[in-house]
Amino acid sequence: MKKNKVVCLISGGLDSSVSAFIAKSLNYDIYSLTIDYGQQHKKELESAKNISSEISSINHIILKLNLNVFGGSTLFEGKYIDIKKNIENIGKEIPSTYVPARNTIFLSLGLAYAESINANAIYIGVNSTDYSGYPDCRPEYIKQFQILANIATKKSIENEKIIIETPLLYLSKSEIIKKGYNLKVPFKKTWSCYKGNSNPCGICDSCLLRLKGFKDANLKDPLDYKILPEWYK
Amino acid sequence: MKKNKVVCLISGGLDSSVSAFIAKSLNYDIYSLTIDYGQQHKKELESAKNISSEISSINHIILKLNLNVFGGSTLFEGKYIDIKKNIENIGKEIPSTYVPARNTIFLSLGLAYAESINANAIYIGVNSTDYSGYPDCRPEYIKQFQILANIATKKSIENEKIIIETPLLYLSKSEIIKKGYNLKVPFKKTWSCYKGNSNPCGICDSCLLRLKGFKDANLKDPLDYKILPEWYK
Repeated sequence: MKKNKVVCLISGGLDSSVSAFIAKSLNYDIYSLTIDYGQQHKKELESAKNISSEISSINHIILKLNLNVFGGSTLFEGKYIDIKKNIENIGKEIPSTYVPARNTIFLSLGLAYAESINANAIYIGVNSTDYSGYPDCRPEYIKQFQILANIATKKSIENEKIIIETPLLYLSKSEIIKKGYNLKVPFKKTWSCYKGNSNPCGICDSCLLRLKGFKDANLKDPLDYKILPEWYK
Repeated sequence: MKKNKVVCLISGGLDSSVSAFIAKSLNYDIYSLTIDYGQQHKKELESAKNISSEISSINHIILKLNLNVFGGSTLFEGKYIDIKKNIENIGKEIPSTYVPARNTIFLSLGLAYAESINANAIYIGVNSTDYSGYPDCRPEYIKQFQILANIATKKSIENEKIIIETPLLYLSKSEIIKKGYNLKVPFKKTWSCYKGNSNPCGICDSCLLRLKGFKDANLKDPLDYKILPEWYK
């Protein structure tokens, strides 16, 4: 039986890695896409290469797109300073790390890739539960992108759909980690820290959400953090 | 009174130039955005710079994004060979020059730029009448992108909208040309030919649609074509 082709958007972070391993577990032919958009955390790109290789991607495109020219986020190289130490405040407002229209851009590029190779779906690791408050991670956003995709392409005019698959959409971070653990995701090869140093900082939003997820899942994060919050130890 | 900021997507072609001149005629502060996506017709980029300067853009971003890595179109450098000579056939099927998800990508990038500079609108020169049959030029597509944009950004969560302005959506090519003529668009500085040679070919879909538009508008195209179709002379 012919296997289905899917595009996996892989940032190198924990969520997109688990999402890609879910696609792998379904035995799809996987084409990976990573956007090098000027993020501070270049280590993510290395992680993306590792994960793409772990899931036996047929092809891995790393596309350069310098979103830094627009500005509007502290996530770009050299700009991230907004460090919150209190995990309780995460998700209460849209943080300075929000990158304008990022998921719309990434899904559009995924759509272009999927249409070009005649793939049936795009896997993206967004989740709306333990997230940082980004507008383009919400279920209603994904639903609208699907409606748009259904009429945006040549494929759609021929009545073939490209499905936006969001297997993590309603999962908590600890559920994502448990799922990844069961699928043998090499967490050591993933990178979540907003900073691009050799070890994750353990104090940015992304490190804190990740550590809390591991703690809630009763698992140990294999990464070697610079600082660990008291509640994690 | 404070002027509104708008982002103008400028390819350097005739339609996007007229669309940008309409924004200029409304006295907006204009921020231009051009995507260098690997198109064969690099001359468009020079035209985009000229048009951006003519409309006194406050800033002009030329963003490199190599969509050629996905393939899927003959519009990329060195691939365009699908030359139709019969204007009657244009628009009857989606041509090989279709670039997968191009307008979704361009509008996403426009959305990112607009949100970053706190602009109120994005001008795009799509038209659904005398077009080449692209799915992402249709009114229903634009309407869906607007619905998506209304929930995709941080700005949208704060109940501020970024409007997708499509002033040419229902105009024929000759109406677009007449409108451009009245607004003193320097047609000589625009570029429509799919080929990147020093003079427009006069035989690709884009040249034919343009020439037919000028003929129907009873105006003379100031460009110096290599070949002119019999019906234009």
